[in-house]
Amino acid sequence: MTSKFGEISISTSKRRQIVDITGDVEGFVKGCGVADGICVVFSLHSTTAIVINEGEGGLKEDILRKIEADYPHGAGWHHDRIDDNADAHLAGTALGPSVALIVRKGDLVLGAWQRVLFIELDGPRSGRRVMLMAQG
Amino acid sequence: MTSKFGEISISTSKRRQIVDITGDVEGFVKGCGVADGICVVFSLHSTTAIVINEGEGGLKEDILRKIEADYPHGAGWHHDRIDDNADAHLAGTALGPSVALIVRKGDLVLGAWQRVLFIELDGPRSGRRVMLMAQG
Amino acid sequence: MTSKFGEISISTSKRRQIVDITGDVEGFVKGCGVADGICVVFSLHSTTAIVINEGEGGLKEDILRKIEADYPHGAGWHHDRIDDNADAHLAGTALGPSVALIVRKGDLVLGAWQRVLFIELDGPRSGRRVMLMAQG
Repeated sequence: MTSKFGEISISTSKRRQIVDITGDVEGFVKGCGVADGICVVFSLHSTTAIVINEGEGGLKEDILRKIEADYPHGAGWHHDRIDDNADAHLAGTALGPSVALIVRKGDLVLGAWQRVLFIELDGPRSGRRVMLMAQG
Repeated sequence: MTSKFGEISISTSKRRQIVDITGDVEGFVKGCGVADGICVVFSLHSTTAIVINEGEGGLKEDILRKIEADYPHGAGWHHDRIDDNADAHLAGTALGPSVALIVRKGDLVLGAWQRVLFIELDGPRSGRRVMLMAQG
Repeated sequence: MTSKFGEISISTSKRRQIVDITGDVEGFVKGCGVADGICVVFSLHSTTAIVINEGEGGLKEDILRKIEADYPHGAGWHHDRIDDNADAHLAGTALGPSVALIVRKGDLVLGAWQRVLFIELDGPRSGRRVMLMAQG
């Protein structure tokens, strides 16, 4: 059994943006030497999230619209006195930075309509870091 | 150390429905040969979710009522032009398809009031697939 | 490869409260003998949650205010007839009791502003239990 570490670097161009990182995670899993096991995808940032869903363009807009409605910017949050991004932290807290995936026969296990999506909540930023650990 | 794969098949009869899969996951863990380790439960669908909470009947109705209130059907979502289920995708994105559990001494570690719940968000459907990977 | 189990005990003094358990989780990981691998943090309760975000004081107040707004106490939930805490179960369902973390070179992998936060949703309580499993 082996543990293999990887990392993805992401740059974003908007305040809120969805980046499909499925290909990067699949490529890492294929090359890491794990046949059957687990892969954890973990974003190093409090104002980003990792989710799993379909990558259809309209749906990605819907997800961002829903986040904006549920976590409005500048709604009198305490944290905005320190750093004007409490809404991004609140969405990041609820959506979460981490997802546990399954690896089987050397491939990432995903449904036909499932993609691994990185959500930027306080961009634009360069050098966003997503850590990967596969084990099996 | 070993990695063991399993699968649960679920059929649902309503658009939104909670199915308690604790017994299936516990049975898999007991039979998989892992003493101490991790078990990932992962649903293959973008319009379902896996959560952990109490299985009390009234609470399960409350969870579905809350999902319906937070993710109303047909609220002008872009994705509804392609497939009339954006609300199900949005709830699935927020709740998530995956949960990481702990296995100890050959048993699933759960609190007295915790159950593993599969949430159907766009049923009824047959052949919903939940993947399991235990490792330890 | 090894699997190592640990446990944290938490007492809370308010109905809703955030307890930073990063130091406990980091201490466990440092002492558990895992170099590269995965650590699952799992709360045994249906009315608590584990999240990852910044530990700044104002933000912690914002998180609790947001939970209170999204999951109001006594809003006519079915489960309140049995136990007057449906709001706590609903927040616990959405936020989740479990998070999968990465261990690298014997240390927990966290971003500069990320903390592991235990959220009490139905306190005050003593003896809240958070289970830890590191593997690698």
